[in-house]
Amino acid sequence: MENKSYLVKMNGNGVLGKAAVNGKTLNGGGVNGKTVHGSFHHVSVNGSLYPAKTKSRRQRWEVKPSEMANNTLNPIRAIVDGMKLSPNPDKPMIALSIGDPTVFGNLPTDEAVLQAMRDAVDSQKFNGYAPSVGYLKSREAVANFYSCSQAPLEADDVILTSGCSQAIDLAISVLCNPGDNILVPCPGFSLYKTLAVSMGIEVKLYNLLPEKSWEIDLQHLESLIDERTSCLIVTNPSNPCGSVFTKEHLQKIIKVASRHCVPILADEIYGDMVFPGCDCPSMASLSSDVPILSCGGLAKRWLVPGWRMGWILIHDRNDVFGSEIRQGLMKLTQRILGACSIVQGALESILNNTPQSFYNSTIRFLKVGIDMDHFPDFKNDVDFTERLVTEQSVFCLPASAFEYPNFFRIVVTVPEEMMVEACARIREFCQRYYRPSSCDSNDLDQ
Amino acid sequence: MENKSYLVKMNGNGVLGKAAVNGKTLNGGGVNGKTVHGSFHHVSVNGSLYPAKTKSRRQRWEVKPSEMANNTLNPIRAIVDGMKLSPNPDKPMIALSIGDPTVFGNLPTDEAVLQAMRDAVDSQKFNGYAPSVGYLKSREAVANFYSCSQAPLEADDVILTSGCSQAIDLAISVLCNPGDNILVPCPGFSLYKTLAVSMGIEVKLYNLLPEKSWEIDLQHLESLIDERTSCLIVTNPSNPCGSVFTKEHLQKIIKVASRHCVPILADEIYGDMVFPGCDCPSMASLSSDVPILSCGGLAKRWLVPGWRMGWILIHDRNDVFGSEIRQGLMKLTQRILGACSIVQGALESILNNTPQSFYNSTIRFLKVGIDMDHFPDFKNDVDFTERLVTEQSVFCLPASAFEYPNFFRIVVTVPEEMMVEACARIREFCQRYYRPSSCDSNDLDQ
Repeated sequence: MENKSYLVKMNGNGVLGKAAVNGKTLNGGGVNGKTVHGSFHHVSVNGSLYPAKTKSRRQRWEVKPSEMANNTLNPIRAIVDGMKLSPNPDKPMIALSIGDPTVFGNLPTDEAVLQAMRDAVDSQKFNGYAPSVGYLKSREAVANFYSCSQAPLEADDVILTSGCSQAIDLAISVLCNPGDNILVPCPGFSLYKTLAVSMGIEVKLYNLLPEKSWEIDLQHLESLIDERTSCLIVTNPSNPCGSVFTKEHLQKIIKVASRHCVPILADEIYGDMVFPGCDCPSMASLSSDVPILSCGGLAKRWLVPGWRMGWILIHDRNDVFGSEIRQGLMKLTQRILGACSIVQGALESILNNTPQSFYNSTIRFLKVGIDMDHFPDFKNDVDFTERLVTEQSVFCLPASAFEYPNFFRIVVTVPEEMMVEACARIREFCQRYYRPSSCDSNDLDQ
Repeated sequence: MENKSYLVKMNGNGVLGKAAVNGKTLNGGGVNGKTVHGSFHHVSVNGSLYPAKTKSRRQRWEVKPSEMANNTLNPIRAIVDGMKLSPNPDKPMIALSIGDPTVFGNLPTDEAVLQAMRDAVDSQKFNGYAPSVGYLKSREAVANFYSCSQAPLEADDVILTSGCSQAIDLAISVLCNPGDNILVPCPGFSLYKTLAVSMGIEVKLYNLLPEKSWEIDLQHLESLIDERTSCLIVTNPSNPCGSVFTKEHLQKIIKVASRHCVPILADEIYGDMVFPGCDCPSMASLSSDVPILSCGGLAKRWLVPGWRMGWILIHDRNDVFGSEIRQGLMKLTQRILGACSIVQGALESILNNTPQSFYNSTIRFLKVGIDMDHFPDFKNDVDFTERLVTEQSVFCLPASAFEYPNFFRIVVTVPEEMMVEACARIREFCQRYYRPSSCDSNDLDQ
């Protein structure tokens, strides 16, 4: 193909390069070895002849982060990073902010859990690659632990993941395409939105009703569903509210999903962490026709969130998931191969040998509302909690981090004496700033 | 908003439902509680009134896997799952297929590595959430281990990941948008393509030259670069070839990247695993202007692939990555929070206390070519390796799994006597099926 004319592009530094036309090499050129290209049949680059592309190549460095990276937002971090957290130097800091029970050492995991890890290390049987869905024996152990007559499970219904976060990631990834929407609770755990938005999936927030122990506003939920709704996320027990749905309420939720043929992602990471005498059925045990992906893990109930040991329990109904969703999940597990093999190896023993007495300790979250009308000195919950640090060295997360302004969240995983001290400081703070309205003479009484 | 007419949709089971018009409730209907919707102002659903959307809702169950799930393909698994692997019952199976050194117990990890894990478990200091990029002390340990004067590293240049697979996933995810392309070696590790294609990123294969110890065909490489090329992946040492690039060749690769302003993802998971007397410089130590993300981990060199402990080393040059790529990576780490905290806790000790004598063992891969003209009984490498299992109970991966038909890959991590037995069986197999061409009287001689 002959090309008698030639077009020479300047490189970024303004040096004119020359090129070859029809095999005749002219002087190559450029600065710092940067190639000059253009629309030629052949191009001479530093003396060698190469076939030329008609596409232009980059002539200067410009490496930008991807859309996915730009769209991955962690609202908790965004809010906290923007706060000026300067504790009162006269009062030691009490952080009631992060849902990590291990911070103060007052809630250690059970000795049986640690021994299971030691045994897994010493066996030297769990150092190689596990199957991407997890070892069969470990999956069997999870299936046996959670199986019940209303929601039976076998090993093939279980996928082990790197933390419950990856379980949620895989579940959303298999059910949703960009442009779909998922329904998530408000207030609610921010990770669902972080994951979904990073993948171009829209998030619709359905309200929880504070006056009804944070039950779901079912009418509001149903009104949000449209033809692109591919998943309903239900968090029970709730983060950040600490509430637990009744069996009747769970059944109503399932009815809504059933009416609109929307599968459920049940985030049950806090499953069974309820006060004695309270019931906490799994969603799957109550669903006869709505297929459910239940996400859980060791993090909270076994008090080892750092170990990154999670799972998906596939509760199909009427073959709605069928083999396609299962295979879709299996394919996705092949991307980064799941959980640490040592923890997988310890899993059977952890589930079978941890004594019931250990489970009787609980992780509890409290949400406290700020009636902002009575705190005119503060603009919002972020302002309030920031000042609480500055004056009282107590740090609670502003619930804007959970899409719920004018509340703040307290975790109760700290040692009791620290909790008592923190409450005293919060009380002192509120008494300082509380302004009764003119017709309201009630004291703030928490 | 009045709506005097109404449209009633049939549900999937052919039952006609009725709906409310302007607040007047007609008989609700449906089968199994399935809702009938249409374009109404209000809709009565099982006796309750709800605001109607004008969008149609689903009326029957149809849950399909996402595009991402459909596009996540593992060619090794796809090929192996399609093979009929029925070993000869008279010969015990010898698997030379998977790059997992732990399978036969002849390549255990070092006692120092195990002790580091025991210490991390017993300390009880590594059970909580780590920072999403990894513990500072662990990142410091990695930085110190790999830092050199030509490529210095600090803790902030290190990101810990759930295996080298996640390191590669994050690196591709931060650099590439859907529609971009990445350059990957052929033959090469299949994960790059699995990850990229699952995210809508195109893959271009650049050739390695078997006659030049599998060096890169630099002309071919350069010819593939276009304006959408966002990353060049270089695997050194090579999987599946087992080859190691010379310093001079690495410098030429870097020159190509430099000319076209393409950043490099250096997969160095087999780094330093070279025969005594051989040199294996990192790419970063040779690059003055091309920014590099080096991916590595414990898997191969420390013989614990199941532990899922990997890292990205950020080697910026001239601020090309700058703060944006670093922050992009950090944001992505917040999706599923990285590696198991116990392994992170053990990392400093693993890196610092494992004796040099341990490193002097090596993992080696051999690639063997099949001259298919001399094996007319077989259609291709998949057919060849399948029959090798059936007759000789030896399993080698057909190199189609690495985009390289008519080769097969042998791993040499098996105990020596097993390797000798396997070679004898391969020889017997080849002698049975080898057909000299009419003008070729050479024996097959490996």
